[in-house]
Amino acid sequence: MQWYLVAALLTVLTSSQGILTTLSQSNGKYKYDYATVPFLAEVFKLIVSCLLLWRECRISPSVRMTTDWKSVRLYPIPSVIYLIHNNVQFATLVYVDTSTYQILGNLKIVTTGILFRLFLRKKLSNIQWIAIVLLAVGTTTSQVKGCGEASCDSLFSAPIQGYMLGILSACMSALAGVYTEYLMKKNNDSLYWQNVQLYTFGVIFNIARLLFDDFRGGFENGPWWQRLFNGYSLTTWLVVLNLGSTGLLVSWLMKYADNIVKVYSTSMAMLLTMLLSVYLFTFKPTLQLFLGIIICMMSLHMYFAPPNMLVDLPLPVKSTTESLKEVSVERKSDS
Amino acid sequence: MQWYLVAALLTVLTSSQGILTTLSQSNGKYKYDYATVPFLAEVFKLIVSCLLLWRECRISPSVRMTTDWKSVRLYPIPSVIYLIHNNVQFATLVYVDTSTYQILGNLKIVTTGILFRLFLRKKLSNIQWIAIVLLAVGTTTSQVKGCGEASCDSLFSAPIQGYMLGILSACMSALAGVYTEYLMKKNNDSLYWQNVQLYTFGVIFNIARLLFDDFRGGFENGPWWQRLFNGYSLTTWLVVLNLGSTGLLVSWLMKYADNIVKVYSTSMAMLLTMLLSVYLFTFKPTLQLFLGIIICMMSLHMYFAPPNMLVDLPLPVKSTTESLKEVSVERKSDS
Repeated sequence: MQWYLVAALLTVLTSSQGILTTLSQSNGKYKYDYATVPFLAEVFKLIVSCLLLWRECRISPSVRMTTDWKSVRLYPIPSVIYLIHNNVQFATLVYVDTSTYQILGNLKIVTTGILFRLFLRKKLSNIQWIAIVLLAVGTTTSQVKGCGEASCDSLFSAPIQGYMLGILSACMSALAGVYTEYLMKKNNDSLYWQNVQLYTFGVIFNIARLLFDDFRGGFENGPWWQRLFNGYSLTTWLVVLNLGSTGLLVSWLMKYADNIVKVYSTSMAMLLTMLLSVYLFTFKPTLQLFLGIIICMMSLHMYFAPPNMLVDLPLPVKSTTESLKEVSVERKSDS
Repeated sequence: MQWYLVAALLTVLTSSQGILTTLSQSNGKYKYDYATVPFLAEVFKLIVSCLLLWRECRISPSVRMTTDWKSVRLYPIPSVIYLIHNNVQFATLVYVDTSTYQILGNLKIVTTGILFRLFLRKKLSNIQWIAIVLLAVGTTTSQVKGCGEASCDSLFSAPIQGYMLGILSACMSALAGVYTEYLMKKNNDSLYWQNVQLYTFGVIFNIARLLFDDFRGGFENGPWWQRLFNGYSLTTWLVVLNLGSTGLLVSWLMKYADNIVKVYSTSMAMLLTMLLSVYLFTFKPTLQLFLGIIICMMSLHMYFAPPNMLVDLPLPVKSTTESLKEVSVERKSDS
């Protein structure tokens, strides 16, 4: 499967995630416990990965699976990072309002680029750096408050702690992504075996979280497993299925493509959601959404187009269509 | 003189033009007839050009001056185009409000690129086209209405004629620029001689315009020459001087650089004006201004940076710092 098809599918599913979540609410409120959704999605991903691993083992007997504890113990780390990230996010929202938090969230595009360069040692060209910054600028542009919206001058008026925590949050989010990519690529293990490890810890951490919530709430509503499917409708199940599927696609991209592809995919999804909301929920289309889409499209082209196309240099003999990004052009200049 | 120094000076002067014009008003109104300002600026440019031509003739006896009527008759054309443009502008404002007109005005960046390519046959690389579109997007972003501002949903609600006329206006404006560049570059005539021809017709057309206004107003305030300096303050004279100087710089750029350099220069000036207004007139800084500045800076870098810097190809032996844009990289690929 080509990485761009997977990326396109991820965009469509992530985008419908936002729409489905909105549709699953009644009168702007969840009738079910939203914390159970990621848990069930982890379970779904674990089951699918187990089935795929089993099938793979049946077809070929030589499936690569490292079962060494030294390797296995690395798999809970993404869950730990997400746990810390959730808490940083919570702390950030003490200082800034949700719309400022959303704007600051676009920083994760840039921090992903930086950590991708530093930790995974991927070299990015000047134009690719510009593309990454433009992607962040484009998504931010689409979120600029139009006239008539509430809470105006909050962005530049939050306390400095809010911005620092927002940046930390962006770094944690990027770190989780970059670390997962490192994990998936560090050996030639079967993707499904890697997934099984990842999602087993995912399920455990989600159970721990639900239990923690129950303890904090003094078991007012009973233990989580008794109210697991309370208020679930068909749409809620679609949300679970969708979240699980996007997780599996992200996992695939981490192994066979990279974090930047994922970042583009989810950013495009955000714009697609806003565009669909104009039709589905009769939102007013804004100039800033239109501008944001143009900027992100330009950024996409700049990042992924072959360099000789961008700067009008003659095409090298070696075909560059197969390689993902790293087009190494060996050349000799004679002027 | 290097073209980028002239471009930087043009940016500073164009930017102070906006500030000076605001300062020359009292209580938001002009105490003088604003139509007299371009006329006096044309006179200023004509005097300066005559003096410089006279000095040039004294220094070297072989100043190139084509006095053939076939050549001279081309010089009123820019004035004619500006005259048509003014009327199209007037017609556009019947259908759209001024802020929508301002937004549509950014299209002239793109139309300049297109006419520059078509009429002057300058080849632009893929990345330079993207840069031009991004410059237009960036200036538009900085103008997006923030919350709390009046007249909200006017942009997408104007009649179709408004948009068509806005596009026509952008084309006329670009045509004037591209035609002037053609005029300045078509032979090796002295810049000052070309200016003398250009501004002589400029003065004539401005007089015609003032006379036309007088006739239309039924000479209510007397003929224009009797009220020429009415209400002029020191700031008004600075506005005249500034407008004249920017005109001379544009003329220089048209001969020794090109339209795209001018477009960048004036776009940067617009952003600089908005930035200075934050300090001078205590405007509130907006997120969209900040984003617009980032986009335009990226665009500037993309357009003017040497291609091998952008895509990380090894630098060719031939130095590219001297040439304006056209870096022809002769190369042989060995893979």
